[in-house]
Amino acid sequence: MTTELEAMARALVLAATPGVPLGPNPRVGCVLLSPDGHVVGEGHHRGAGTAHAEVDALAAAGDAARGATAVVTLEPCDHTGRTGPCTQALLAAGVRRVVHALDDPTPLASGGVATLRAAGVEVEGGVLAPEARVVNRAWLHGLATGRPFVTWKLAASLDGRSAAADGTSRWISSRASRRDTHRRRAEADVMLVGTQTVLVDDPLLTVRDDADAALAHQPLRAVMGERDLPADRRVLVPVPGAPATVHLRTRDPRAALAELYDAGRRHVFLEGGPTLAAAFWRAGLVDEVVCYTAPVLLGAGAPAVADLGVGTMADAVRPEVLDVTVLPGLEGEGPDVRWTLAGVASPARGRAESRVSGGSR
Amino acid sequence: MTTELEAMARALVLAATPGVPLGPNPRVGCVLLSPDGHVVGEGHHRGAGTAHAEVDALAAAGDAARGATAVVTLEPCDHTGRTGPCTQALLAAGVRRVVHALDDPTPLASGGVATLRAAGVEVEGGVLAPEARVVNRAWLHGLATGRPFVTWKLAASLDGRSAAADGTSRWISSRASRRDTHRRRAEADVMLVGTQTVLVDDPLLTVRDDADAALAHQPLRAVMGERDLPADRRVLVPVPGAPATVHLRTRDPRAALAELYDAGRRHVFLEGGPTLAAAFWRAGLVDEVVCYTAPVLLGAGAPAVADLGVGTMADAVRPEVLDVTVLPGLEGEGPDVRWTLAGVASPARGRAESRVSGGSR
Repeated sequence: MTTELEAMARALVLAATPGVPLGPNPRVGCVLLSPDGHVVGEGHHRGAGTAHAEVDALAAAGDAARGATAVVTLEPCDHTGRTGPCTQALLAAGVRRVVHALDDPTPLASGGVATLRAAGVEVEGGVLAPEARVVNRAWLHGLATGRPFVTWKLAASLDGRSAAADGTSRWISSRASRRDTHRRRAEADVMLVGTQTVLVDDPLLTVRDDADAALAHQPLRAVMGERDLPADRRVLVPVPGAPATVHLRTRDPRAALAELYDAGRRHVFLEGGPTLAAAFWRAGLVDEVVCYTAPVLLGAGAPAVADLGVGTMADAVRPEVLDVTVLPGLEGEGPDVRWTLAGVASPARGRAESRVSGGSR
Repeated sequence: MTTELEAMARALVLAATPGVPLGPNPRVGCVLLSPDGHVVGEGHHRGAGTAHAEVDALAAAGDAARGATAVVTLEPCDHTGRTGPCTQALLAAGVRRVVHALDDPTPLASGGVATLRAAGVEVEGGVLAPEARVVNRAWLHGLATGRPFVTWKLAASLDGRSAAADGTSRWISSRASRRDTHRRRAEADVMLVGTQTVLVDDPLLTVRDDADAALAHQPLRAVMGERDLPADRRVLVPVPGAPATVHLRTRDPRAALAELYDAGRRHVFLEGGPTLAAAFWRAGLVDEVVCYTAPVLLGAGAPAVADLGVGTMADAVRPEVLDVTVLPGLEGEGPDVRWTLAGVASPARGRAESRVSGGSR
C-alpha cells in the first residue's frame, strides 16, 4: 500500500534521475497507483522529443491504468508539441484521479487541470510543491529570467587557496568532496570552464558516479574565452554520452549564457577558473555558490577567488547560507565542509513563479 | 543522591573555572560526598600560593567531611610546597575514601595514593581520566616539553582572507565566533600577538563573557617583536584583573615561549598576525589550530595565513581534524564553522604522560 504522498516522493526521485533531461524541458516523474494503492506504473521524462512522464508510466502500466490515480510532479500538459497532450493520454487510459505538485507555469502547456476536470477527473495540486520547485529550479529560473541558472563551484584550502605555490592543485579537497561534486555536476546540463583552466589544468569534465563509472548521459562541456585551444586538450576528446564540446569565443558572461540558453541549456555548473567566476559574479550572474572547504593549509599559491570588486569590509559579500554540511573524511582525508550559498543573482529566484514567460515542453 | 561519576564530572567543571588558575599549577576540582551520597563540600584550586582544591572543599564542608568520599580530579599531593600536603588535610578531616581522575605525574607531588592507603583510606584512580587530561592538557604539555602549549587562532573568510583590500578587518567572523573566541581565550593564560598587529589593529586583548563583561581574572597580554610600541596602544592600557602587559623583545618563537614558561605561563593563545603565526608553525611550535571560517567572500585583501614553507601540493599541511562545529548564526550573520586541528607539534601531546619531568604545584 503506497500513499499518494509516498508516490509523489517517488515521482520526484524519478524526475531527478541523474543526466535527464538534458535540454530545455522540465524534470518530470509520474507514478500510477491502483485504487487499492498499488504502484502499477512508473515513468519519467527523458528529454525533448521523448515521451512525457505520464505517457511513459501509462506504457508501463498497460490496462492496469484504468481507474488509477496518476501522481505526477507537474501539471499534465494540454498541448501538442513534439508529443501529444498528456491530458488526452490520461483520459484515454481511464485514469480517474490526478495528483500533481506544480502547476505548469508556461502559457502554452498549461490548462491541463481544467481539461481533466471538464472530463470528470478528480484533480489535486500542490502536493510536495516546494520539493518539486527544487528539482526544477533551473527550468523555473530559465522561464523567469531567460538565461540558465548558474552554480559557481569552488574548492579551497582553509586559507582560501586553490593551488600550491608551484601551481599544483591535485587534490585539495577530499575524495568525498570530489564525489559530491560529480553528483552536483549531474544535476546540471553544462559544465563551464575558461580557456585558462583548460590550458593549465586540462580537466576531462565528465560526470562519474560513486563507483567512478561515467554516466550514460553527460552534461555539455563548454569552454569560454577567446584563446584557441590545442587539439590535445582532454576536454576536446569525445566521450560516450557527451555532446561535442562547445567553445564559446567570448569574454562576456551574459553573451555566453545567452548562447547556452539558445542551445536549450538551463543549468550551468561553473568550475573555474577564479577570473572567469569573478566575471560572472561581478555581472550578477551567479545564482548559487557551492564551496568545498578542506582542512588543508598552504600558506602560498593561487587564491581560489579573484577580485569581486570588494574594497572594504563593509562591502564584503555575505551570501545567504542555504546549507552547511560536513562531508565525512575517507582514508585520512577531510572532513571537508560543503557550503551552499545564495548567489549574487539570487533574488531573481524567488520571483521564478511570478515572472514566467514563454518556454514549452 | 550524587554518584561518584557525577561528582567527578562536577569536579572537572570546577577545575575548568574560567580564569583560574593563571599560572603554572594544574586545574583541580574537588567534591566531597557524604556516605549517603550528598554533596557536603566543593572546592577548586585558584592558583599558586592559594589553597588546593581538596583543602578548599574541606573548608566548605567543615565537620561534614568526616567519613566522606573526596572526589578529586588529580591525585592528592603529598608534599609541602607553599601549602601543606593535601593527604594530611584529608586524613585530619576524617575522609574515608578518595576517588581521583589523574595520577600526579610530578615526582615532587606524587605519592599521595600510597600515603592515603597506608593510613587506611580506600583509593580509586582513573575515573574520567581522559576528560581530566583535556582540562589539564596545557599543564601536562608543559611537564612533557618544558614550554607552553600553543593554540593558534585564526579567522578567515571562505576565500582565506583576514582583511579587505583596504586593510579593514572588523568583522569577518560572526558574533557567535567572537564569543567562542573569548571562551577559548579564557582557557589560556597568555594572549600573544605581534607588534605589527598592535600597530595596525590595536586590539584590547581582554576576555569577556557571553554578557560582554570582562572576566575578573584575565590572561597575560603579551606582544612579541623588536619594534617599540606607542604608549597609546590599547593593549598597554591597564585592565582590572589583568597583569601588566609584557613586551617580548625577540623574533624567536622558542625564546618567547621560554620566557613565558619561566614566568609560569602554560597556555599561549596566539592571535596573530599571520607572519608571527607562520614563524611559530615553521618552528614546530603550534600544538593546536582553532580556525573560524566565515561565509564571507572578499576576493582581495590580506591572506589569513602566511608562508608556511609549502611549495607544492604534496607538501600541503593536512592537520588531523579534532573537531568541526557549525556555530549557528545570530541576526543575519554566519553560520561560521569552527575547525579544531592538531598542530604541527602535536605528536608531543601524546607523550605528555610518559615524558613527565620536573614541575610542582
